[in-house]
Amino acid sequence: MALDYSRAGDWILREDSFDPEHLGKCEAVMCLGNGYLGLRSAMEEKYLNETRDLLINGTFNQFDPSAVTELPNAADMTAIELTVNQERFTLEQGNIDFYSRELNIRKAELKREAVWISPKGEQFSLTFRRVVSLDRLHDFAIQVQITPLSNDAEIEIKSGIDGRVTNTGAQHFTEGDMRLYEGKHIQYVQKTTQSGITFALNTAHRFWTEDEELELSAQLHMEVRKIYGIYRTRVKKGETLKIEKYCNVYTTRDLELQGKTVKEMQAFSLEKLKEQKAFGYAKLAADTEAEWNRQVWERVPIKIEGNAYDDFAVHFAQYHMRLMVPAHDNRMNIGAKGLTGEGYRGHCFWDTEIFLLPYYAFTQPETARKLEEYRYLTLPGAHKKAADNGYQGAMFPWESAWMDDGEVTPEFQNADIVTGLLIKVWSGFIEQHITADVAFGVWQYASITGDQDFMDRYGYELILDTARFWASRLEEKNRQIHERVNEQGITEFTETVTKDGFLHICDVVGPDEYKEHKTDNAFTNYLAAWNIRKAIACCQLLKVEKPKLYQTLNEKLELEHWYQEWIQKVDRIFLPAPNEKGILPQDSTYLNLQEIDLSKYKAQDFVGGIFHDYNQTQINQLQVSKQADVLALFFLLEDLFPREVKTATWDYYSERTIHDSSLSLCTHAVLAADMRELEEAYRLFEKSTEIDLGPVMTTSDAGIHAASFGGIWQGAVYGFGGLRTLDGRLRIDPCLPDAWEKLTYEIIWQGQRLEVSVTRGNVRVKNLTKTKIVELKLCKKTVQLEKEVTAEL
Amino acid sequence: MALDYSRAGDWILREDSFDPEHLGKCEAVMCLGNGYLGLRSAMEEKYLNETRDLLINGTFNQFDPSAVTELPNAADMTAIELTVNQERFTLEQGNIDFYSRELNIRKAELKREAVWISPKGEQFSLTFRRVVSLDRLHDFAIQVQITPLSNDAEIEIKSGIDGRVTNTGAQHFTEGDMRLYEGKHIQYVQKTTQSGITFALNTAHRFWTEDEELELSAQLHMEVRKIYGIYRTRVKKGETLKIEKYCNVYTTRDLELQGKTVKEMQAFSLEKLKEQKAFGYAKLAADTEAEWNRQVWERVPIKIEGNAYDDFAVHFAQYHMRLMVPAHDNRMNIGAKGLTGEGYRGHCFWDTEIFLLPYYAFTQPETARKLEEYRYLTLPGAHKKAADNGYQGAMFPWESAWMDDGEVTPEFQNADIVTGLLIKVWSGFIEQHITADVAFGVWQYASITGDQDFMDRYGYELILDTARFWASRLEEKNRQIHERVNEQGITEFTETVTKDGFLHICDVVGPDEYKEHKTDNAFTNYLAAWNIRKAIACCQLLKVEKPKLYQTLNEKLELEHWYQEWIQKVDRIFLPAPNEKGILPQDSTYLNLQEIDLSKYKAQDFVGGIFHDYNQTQINQLQVSKQADVLALFFLLEDLFPREVKTATWDYYSERTIHDSSLSLCTHAVLAADMRELEEAYRLFEKSTEIDLGPVMTTSDAGIHAASFGGIWQGAVYGFGGLRTLDGRLRIDPCLPDAWEKLTYEIIWQGQRLEVSVTRGNVRVKNLTKTKIVELKLCKKTVQLEKEVTAEL
Repeated sequence: MALDYSRAGDWILREDSFDPEHLGKCEAVMCLGNGYLGLRSAMEEKYLNETRDLLINGTFNQFDPSAVTELPNAADMTAIELTVNQERFTLEQGNIDFYSRELNIRKAELKREAVWISPKGEQFSLTFRRVVSLDRLHDFAIQVQITPLSNDAEIEIKSGIDGRVTNTGAQHFTEGDMRLYEGKHIQYVQKTTQSGITFALNTAHRFWTEDEELELSAQLHMEVRKIYGIYRTRVKKGETLKIEKYCNVYTTRDLELQGKTVKEMQAFSLEKLKEQKAFGYAKLAADTEAEWNRQVWERVPIKIEGNAYDDFAVHFAQYHMRLMVPAHDNRMNIGAKGLTGEGYRGHCFWDTEIFLLPYYAFTQPETARKLEEYRYLTLPGAHKKAADNGYQGAMFPWESAWMDDGEVTPEFQNADIVTGLLIKVWSGFIEQHITADVAFGVWQYASITGDQDFMDRYGYELILDTARFWASRLEEKNRQIHERVNEQGITEFTETVTKDGFLHICDVVGPDEYKEHKTDNAFTNYLAAWNIRKAIACCQLLKVEKPKLYQTLNEKLELEHWYQEWIQKVDRIFLPAPNEKGILPQDSTYLNLQEIDLSKYKAQDFVGGIFHDYNQTQINQLQVSKQADVLALFFLLEDLFPREVKTATWDYYSERTIHDSSLSLCTHAVLAADMRELEEAYRLFEKSTEIDLGPVMTTSDAGIHAASFGGIWQGAVYGFGGLRTLDGRLRIDPCLPDAWEKLTYEIIWQGQRLEVSVTRGNVRVKNLTKTKIVELKLCKKTVQLEKEVTAEL
Repeated sequence: MALDYSRAGDWILREDSFDPEHLGKCEAVMCLGNGYLGLRSAMEEKYLNETRDLLINGTFNQFDPSAVTELPNAADMTAIELTVNQERFTLEQGNIDFYSRELNIRKAELKREAVWISPKGEQFSLTFRRVVSLDRLHDFAIQVQITPLSNDAEIEIKSGIDGRVTNTGAQHFTEGDMRLYEGKHIQYVQKTTQSGITFALNTAHRFWTEDEELELSAQLHMEVRKIYGIYRTRVKKGETLKIEKYCNVYTTRDLELQGKTVKEMQAFSLEKLKEQKAFGYAKLAADTEAEWNRQVWERVPIKIEGNAYDDFAVHFAQYHMRLMVPAHDNRMNIGAKGLTGEGYRGHCFWDTEIFLLPYYAFTQPETARKLEEYRYLTLPGAHKKAADNGYQGAMFPWESAWMDDGEVTPEFQNADIVTGLLIKVWSGFIEQHITADVAFGVWQYASITGDQDFMDRYGYELILDTARFWASRLEEKNRQIHERVNEQGITEFTETVTKDGFLHICDVVGPDEYKEHKTDNAFTNYLAAWNIRKAIACCQLLKVEKPKLYQTLNEKLELEHWYQEWIQKVDRIFLPAPNEKGILPQDSTYLNLQEIDLSKYKAQDFVGGIFHDYNQTQINQLQVSKQADVLALFFLLEDLFPREVKTATWDYYSERTIHDSSLSLCTHAVLAADMRELEEAYRLFEKSTEIDLGPVMTTSDAGIHAASFGGIWQGAVYGFGGLRTLDGRLRIDPCLPDAWEKLTYEIIWQGQRLEVSVTRGNVRVKNLTKTKIVELKLCKKTVQLEKEVTAEL
C-alpha cells in the first residue's frame, strides 16, 4: 500500500487501506502539533508495532549518565479502546468494508473512517476525528462516532492516561501521581527523572447518542503508571454514539508557568481542561482551522498551478514546518524529526540554519529570530565545548538540546559489519562546520529581515565569537590522518605531517558524513574563512558606526587581540582550488580514492545500504558521498566560482552521491535549477518530496525529515522561484519546470511584503507593503521596486 | 476459551485455541524456570497485550527514589519473528487450521503446534518447543520447525536480543553494550540503574533443512537497546526448516561469579553459550527432563488415584514450587508471583513461611533451610524497621526483597472510589504478624527436619530476636482507632484510650487485610504470645543444654533482661476469648460491625469487586473478610480451642469471607477436612486449584499465586492426607474425599523418609529410611514406627 494523493487538490493526504505492517508512516506524516507539542497519529485502538508519541518541545531528560538527553515521550492520552458486544475493536481482526484516513492540512485535522465487520459478523461504522489546537497550545481533542449497523450494541469504552509508554524502552518519568477529580476529570502528574520537569496531563470525556448527552459514570482503574475509566452504554442499531475526549498537557518548563508551584499548575491545567470540555470538540476544531489560516495559510501564501501534487507537497512542507517550530519560546529549537518521532532524540543540527531558517526568515521573521536567539542562549555550552577541546571562542555542538546541555551527540551507534562492534559517531567531535553554519544563519537572518536590533543584541556577538573559534582552530601543520583496523577490531589512527605555510583544518567530518578524519574539507575551510571575514567586517563596521557596542563587545571578546589574529590568518587559510578539470576537491584525498560502481546503492529505496557491504573505515577509502558537500558550498556561497567549475564539479559529485541523507536531494534540486538543468531539477525536486510523502513506507518511522521540508520549500522558491540572498542582496531569477504553469509566492524582505508570480513567460514582483523602495536583482538586472516590476523570462 | 485438562493424565496442560484477549493466563501458568530464572511463556511471534518477562531472582533494582525496588525484566531473547513469502506470521491474521499449546510438566517443556493459513492463503505447519534447563541454571533454548505446505517459501527470521522491554513501563537498565562475536554470537550487556548489577545475555542460532545444517549468515542490526540478525532461506514445499535458538543469562550477582570482572563474565557466558550451541536443543531438553526427575518427581512422589485432574493439580503445584524457589542461593526468597510475572514486584511475604515452607521442609529440607537462612540474612533490615518505629528487636518487613533493602511495601496503590485518591497501603506499616510468622516458620522448619545445626546458627536467634520485638510492641493502653474521611477526602484518625491491666497490640492489620487499624487482632495476639513463649522456652533450654551458645546470644541480645520482660508480660497479653456462642472475635470490633449481603461478591469471578461499591474506610465498618484470619490461627495452632469453638467460629467467618486472597481457600479446605466436612473440603480444594488453573482467564496475568500452590499441596497432604506437625510432634490423620480412591505421598520427618498411603479403608505409613524409630500420632493413637504401621479409617 502507499499514500493516496487523489485529494491533494483539497489539501488532503489520504491513506486508503489499513496497513498494520507500516504504521509508522502515517503516524509521522499525519502527525498533529503546534510547536509546543507534537502528537504522533497512532490510532485510538492499539496495534503491535505502533509508536505512540506525545513530545513536548524543550523538555529534555537524560535517562542515565551513560545516555544522551532526549525529548521524553509523555504519557499517552490518545488511546481509546472500544469493545462492542464483547468483541474488541481492532482492524487486524474481522473484515474491513471501508477504510479511509485523511489528514486535512488546511484544518490541521485528522479523520479516520471505517466500516468494520467484527469476527462474529456484526457491522459497525466508525469515524475518528482528532485535532491539536493552534491557539491553545496545550490542548487537543478526539471525537469518536460509532454506529452499530447490524444489531443494538453494548459498547464499552476504556480510556484514560497511560504512563507506560517509553522512548524505545527508556522510561523518562517517575511513576507519578494520579487523581480523579469530581468523579470525571482524570489527572496524571509525572516528573522527568533527571531534569526534574513535572508534567500535568488531564483528560475528560463526554458522550452523546443522537445529540442527547449521556451522563456515563466511569468505573475507575488505577494501575502502575496507568489511570483510566471504563464506560459502558447501550446503543441501538442505526443510532450513533459520539464520544469526545478532551486532553491537555502542561509542564513546569512552560514559560507561562514560571514562578508557579506544581500544585498551582495542577489546578490551572484542570481549570483549562474544564474550559475545553465545556466548549467541546467542534469549537476547538473550528478555532484551530481559523488559527491555521491566520498564522500560516493567509500569512504565507504560495501556489503552484499546473500540478496539484506539487502544490500540495509545498503546503505539506509548510504544515510540518509549523508543527515543528517553537514559535512560542526561544529556549528551544527544531529537532531533526520535528516533534513527530523519537529519531535523533529531539536534537537540533545545522538543519535549522541551512535548510529551515530561510523559510522562517522570509515569511515569519519573529519565529526565525527565536531560532537564532536560541543559538545565543546556548553560547555557554559552545564556550565549554571549545575549552574542552583546547580551542577558544564559541564551538557549537553538532547536536544541541536544552540551553545548557552543550554537546549531546551520542558517541556510538549501529554496528560495524566487519568487527561487530558499535560504530563511533565522530560528528560530535569533529563535524565542526556547524559553528560556521550558525554564523552563516545569523548573517542570513539579518540580511533577509534587516533586524538591526537582533544584530546589536546577539548577531554581532555570535559572528565574532564563532570567528574566535576558527582562528584558534586553524593549524600550521598539514596533518593527514590515516586509519587502520587492528586485529582486535579497534581502529588505530596515525598521521603524516607536513608544513606548507598555509593554515589547515585537519581531521574533520564535512557535510558528507561518509568521509571522516579528513583534512581541508572545502565546505569547512571556505565557510570558516567566510566566518572570519565577516567578523573582520563587523569589527570595522562597529568601530565606526557603533563604537559603544564595539567597546562592550571588545571587553567581552577581546576584539582588539582577535582582530589582529583574523587579519594575519584569514589569507593564509588553505582554500582548495579546482583541479585542471575544474573540479573542486571535497578534501585533500577524495579525488584520489578508489572508485566503485554505486548503481546498487542508488537503486535502493532505503538509506545506509552501503553499510551492509562496507564498514565506515572502508567507505572512507571510496569515492562515494552520502550527500551534497562541495555542492552545498556552491549553494550557500553562490558567487564563489565560475559557472564552468560549478558544472564540472556538479557532474563529478552528483555521480558519486547516493543521497543517503534527506538533506541532499533538495540542495541538488536547487543547484540544478540554478544551472537551468530543469528536467533534472524537477526530477530531484520530486524525489525530495518523496522522502516523506513517497511510496517507501518505512522512511518516516522515526519521524519526518524536518530539514527536507525546508528543502522542499527551497526547491520551489529558491530553485524554480529563483529567490536568493547573495551576500545581503535580494535576487529573484526564476524558471518554471514543464510540469508547472504558474508559481506565486510571498516573502517579506526587510519589512516589505513582496508577491512574486512566475509564469513560463515572465516574472512579476509586487511590493504589497510599499513603505520602502526595494532594490533587487531581478533575473540579471538590478531594479528598484516601488510597487510592481515585471521581467520577461 | 479456557485451559484444557484432557491430557492431565499425561501431566500435560493444554490450551486448545489461540486467544489474543487472554495471553496472560498461559504466559504465567505455562511459565518455565528453575529458581534462578523465570521465563514467561510469551509466544515467539509478538502480540499486542503480551507480557514478555525474563526475571532473574534476587536482581532487585529501584527505578527511582519514589519507587519500590522490584525484580527487573531483563532483555528478551524469546522473540523470533517469522516472515514467510513476505507475510508476517501472526495468528491474529489469516486462519488457524490447528492450534495446540502444551506444557509437559514432567519434562518441563513447552510445545506449540499450529497449522496456519496466511492471509494470502498459503498453508504452513509450525512447531515451537522451548525448555529452560534445570541443571544449567543460566540456559534456555527454543526450537522452531516450519514446513510450507502450499508452495516453496522464502523464510525470513528476525531474532536476537531486545532490551526495550520494561516492568509496566519502568526501565531498569542502562542502554547497554552490544556486540556480535565471530559473526554469529550475539551478546548484550545491560546494567541495573540503581543496584548496579550487570547482566550478560547471549544468544546464537543454528538452522537445518531436513537434517542438513545450513550456514546462514545474519544481516546484523543494532538499534537503540536492540540487537538482532535477519536470516533468510528458501524452503521447498513439504520440507521442514528447523531453527534452534540458544540463550543464556548471567549476572554479577550470581554466587559463582563473585570476584569476577564484568569482562570475565562476558567471556565466560560466551563460552557457555558456545557449549550449549554445540550440543543443541535435544540434549538440553533431555538433560532437563532427567534433572526434573531427579530433583522433583522421583524425590517428592505424590499420587492421587481416582481423579486425574486433582493428581495433575498437585503435580502442577510441585512444578511451580520448583520454578519459584531459589534452591541455589540463600540470599533471596520466593516472590508472591514466583518468577512468572511482575506482580508484587518479586517481593516475598508471609506466604513463604505459612503456605510454602511446609512443602519444602517436608520434602526438600536443604531448600527449606535456605529460605529460612534468608530471614536470618535480612535481620539488619528487621532491626532497622524496629528502630525506625520505636521498637526493639527484629521487626520483619511485610514485603522483603534484597537482603539489605528492609521494608519494601509500596505506600500507595489503586484508587479510592469515593475520594478519587490513591489508597494508602497500610501493610508495610502495621501488618505486623509477619514477625511472628517468621518465628513460627523457624520453629516449624526445625520441628520437621530436626536440623539442630540450623537452630544453633540461626534459629534460636531468630526466635529470641522476634520475641524482643513483641515485648517492646505490647501496649499498656487499649487504644481503639477511629477513622473518618474529612471534606478534603483525607482520612483522619482519632483514638479512644482505656486501661484494663492487659497488654494490647493496637492499630494493626491482621491476615484479613479488609480490616485496618484494629486492636487485639486474635491472630496477631495469639501468635505474638506464642512467639514470646517459644523464646522463654528457648532460653530455658539453652541455659541448661547449650550454655556457651546461651552466653553468645545473651551478649548479642541481652537475654537476661528480656527474659524478665517476657516472663512479666506474656501472661498479661490480651488473648481474645470465644463469646457466648463460641465465636472467637477477629478483633475488638468485628462482631459488632454492620452486616451486609455478600452474595454478589462471592459470585464474582474476580477479586476486589467490593471496592467498586465501597471504599476501604467503609469496608472497615462491615462484617466482611478478605481471607481466613481467625481460621488461619486455628490452622497454625490447632490445639488452642475445643472443637465446638472451632465449628462455631468456622460457621461464622466462612459465611463472611469472600476469598479475595489466594491464601484463603486452601486454609479453609484444610480446616474443613480437619472437621471432616469432606464435601465442603473437597469443594474448597477444587476451588483452590482453580485460582490459576480455573476457567477465569485473567487471574494469572501478573503471575501465578505462589502461596496457593503451597496451599494446594497442603490441601492434599495436610487436608486429606492428615499430615500436621503439632508443637513439634508428627501427626497423620487422613480422610479421603469421595472423588479419590487412593492418596500416596512421601515426606521426610527428621531424616526418615516416610511413605504414607491412604485408601478409603486404611492408612499405611512405611519408613523407607529405617535408621530411626519415628514416633507419630496416627489417627488418634501415638505409635512408634519402625518399618511400617497401618490404621483403619
